[in-house]
Amino acid sequence: MRGLRAKVVIVGGGFGGLQAARGLGRAPVEVTLVDRRNFHLFQPLLYQVATGGLSPGDICAPLRGVLRHQKNTRVWLAEVRDLDVANRRVKLADGEIPYDFLIVATGARHHYFGREDWERFAPGLKTVEDATEMRRRILLAFEAAEREPDADKRRAWLTFVVVGAGPTGVELAGALGEIANHTLREDFRAIRPQEARILLVEHADRVLPSYPAALSAKAERALIRHHVRPLTGVKVVDLDAEGVVLERRGGARERIAAKTVLWAAGVRGSALGQVLAERAGAELDKAGRVLVGPDLSLPGRPEIFVIGDLACAVQNGVPLSAVAPVAMQQGRYVARAIQARLRGRAIAPFRYRDKGTLATIGRHHAVADFQWLRFDGFPAWVTWLFVHLLYLVGFQNRLLVLIQWAFHYFTFNRGARLITEPPAAVSQMQRVQSKQ
Amino acid sequence: MRGLRAKVVIVGGGFGGLQAARGLGRAPVEVTLVDRRNFHLFQPLLYQVATGGLSPGDICAPLRGVLRHQKNTRVWLAEVRDLDVANRRVKLADGEIPYDFLIVATGARHHYFGREDWERFAPGLKTVEDATEMRRRILLAFEAAEREPDADKRRAWLTFVVVGAGPTGVELAGALGEIANHTLREDFRAIRPQEARILLVEHADRVLPSYPAALSAKAERALIRHHVRPLTGVKVVDLDAEGVVLERRGGARERIAAKTVLWAAGVRGSALGQVLAERAGAELDKAGRVLVGPDLSLPGRPEIFVIGDLACAVQNGVPLSAVAPVAMQQGRYVARAIQARLRGRAIAPFRYRDKGTLATIGRHHAVADFQWLRFDGFPAWVTWLFVHLLYLVGFQNRLLVLIQWAFHYFTFNRGARLITEPPAAVSQMQRVQSKQ
Repeated sequence: MRGLRAKVVIVGGGFGGLQAARGLGRAPVEVTLVDRRNFHLFQPLLYQVATGGLSPGDICAPLRGVLRHQKNTRVWLAEVRDLDVANRRVKLADGEIPYDFLIVATGARHHYFGREDWERFAPGLKTVEDATEMRRRILLAFEAAEREPDADKRRAWLTFVVVGAGPTGVELAGALGEIANHTLREDFRAIRPQEARILLVEHADRVLPSYPAALSAKAERALIRHHVRPLTGVKVVDLDAEGVVLERRGGARERIAAKTVLWAAGVRGSALGQVLAERAGAELDKAGRVLVGPDLSLPGRPEIFVIGDLACAVQNGVPLSAVAPVAMQQGRYVARAIQARLRGRAIAPFRYRDKGTLATIGRHHAVADFQWLRFDGFPAWVTWLFVHLLYLVGFQNRLLVLIQWAFHYFTFNRGARLITEPPAAVSQMQRVQSKQ
Repeated sequence: MRGLRAKVVIVGGGFGGLQAARGLGRAPVEVTLVDRRNFHLFQPLLYQVATGGLSPGDICAPLRGVLRHQKNTRVWLAEVRDLDVANRRVKLADGEIPYDFLIVATGARHHYFGREDWERFAPGLKTVEDATEMRRRILLAFEAAEREPDADKRRAWLTFVVVGAGPTGVELAGALGEIANHTLREDFRAIRPQEARILLVEHADRVLPSYPAALSAKAERALIRHHVRPLTGVKVVDLDAEGVVLERRGGARERIAAKTVLWAAGVRGSALGQVLAERAGAELDKAGRVLVGPDLSLPGRPEIFVIGDLACAVQNGVPLSAVAPVAMQQGRYVARAIQARLRGRAIAPFRYRDKGTLATIGRHHAVADFQWLRFDGFPAWVTWLFVHLLYLVGFQNRLLVLIQWAFHYFTFNRGARLITEPPAAVSQMQRVQSKQ
């Protein structure tokens, strides 16, 4: 061990990285948390930013602020480019940081299954910028429809396709249904926002395929009540600025004219997974996630841990899901594992304790699966609200979100409906329109 | 008059345009409010977004939402490119809108006095994007300083120059003083944010030159208490990515290494002023503002009104200031003037009723000039808070801002300290750093 105290470098300040840093707050180690952004993002509420319900600031907490009182921890705004595993150094664009223990928690990016060119037509939802871009596209579609004299083109502007019916896709589609049918109801003069078509495309034969079938059925009914059309057993085979081509199980294809396509279909491990494969011989699964051992370290590299969405940790023969509770428990576990190692003690393998899953479908509806208890409807929705407020970082954020939800509930209004972008983008959009 | 009802087109949804639209809400006219953004921006609090105290959503209100119940009014997201004054048409990139009355309220942009190339080194503060860009630069400067081993370069990162000591410059500098000395106090490990130098450069011989001299003196003392160094009687003669060259009255020049320069010095009328000059023979003052008659219409073009920051309305021999209360009163006046004309009645010339001016200097300090009463310190600060909350559009925004101010007051924290930008910008900044 070099120096007086072991150096722990954590890459990524998401759920996993932040919990690891907090878990090491009183340990006799020097912690460096490296992130290319200066804030922790509460991803489960990102779809509410994308749909104008919340501001980015409401669901972000500055990492320095969160860790300010943790004197053994420094925060480093930088992007990790490479690793020098032999000399135990993390390489940045402009320098390097030595480590004794490395925790990689850089999460996942969208996955277009080899069709990465689809990204510009169908943005995904991982970063704050993704969310404001989605918000921009959704709001501009209604604006363009209001100004479009041609009925077919207007219909294409008012058609929204959400690809992928996992929790994110279901929540996005539900929120879109609410925007069209409640929030914007009286806002336009030439169009009726209620005429918007919201299609939720899912390759599997039911929405929320990772949930129990009974909850999927309830979610599907709730979606329909929120004016969303779930299209299950349907695959997107092509996609461009004008719409999507869908293929049903039998092979029947249909082109749907839609100006707004939102991607919630797949994720792949972030770029550092590839670096770990090259530099540390890590094995990746087909989604680019790093296979880790029972203590979440790399096989043969006990000083390198991988946690969160980037890790593929197998439990009872199946890989754990890429969800926040897994990442948080892994972060806390790794903090304990490092302290145990420093004391020369053994630690039991990581075990994820599934406390349940929740997904919400617009106003008043959610589905909950707590293993011992499955429920849906209003009680599940209230539970969803409560759990999300509880895990949000920062008391101020909690209060701001609570107030906006309350307003939203009673007035149907969504205050953060801003189209923010360099004005150039708006006029470009107008040029696009005027060419049609 | 064509059609059944007179067509009123309002260009710009700022303070002036929005008040004009509201004033015409029950009039027998068809109103079209054209704006290139989909929201009304409460500019007086924009500096709080630039300094991480508030989120953009908190001070913006979607125009459609504000005017949703006003059935004679439609909102049009578009940029006006030209005017056809003879045929009374407003020309957009992709179409035109006929008018019987035209209200131009497109405001002002920064003015670099012929050195427009300075803009990329010293951004101004007019739009939401300006504010997030300023916020990004301020926060990145502290981040870069934390990582900079060289003392001189670190000092340049920790030197902030605000150019112009009008209300915006004073408020910005005061907020910077608070960020460095309170908000970020415990956030860094390698630097002490309190060592930041904040210079407020003003060409006139006192800060807040448009205020009574006694209040300027008090503002100057308050600034010094907030660790801001006011440099009055000083001119910026050069400016680049590495700093500024200042010139004192006597001609002595000094170069100051500063990585962050913020522009609050001058405004010029927006581009439509030039269009009015070319198409309707309007006369512009040297700041590009349109000279208007006693009823705020163009001389010789009674159907075209110009209000707000773009208008140069002379009262008692002096032009009215480019401030929100003037624009709001002008908006309401023009709405009345149009209704009077439709009824064939005369209306008295516009007269601005000055209810007073306020400027705040960080925590606890403000100066107020209510003509019959001038005061400063804590009472002025509370008045400032109250007046700004009162004029903010939307009850939800008021509550959100109030809560964030309360948190801010008791915890010194500023929750919206996000560096948001395409990740490319962050790594570019890191490349810039690494080259040094």
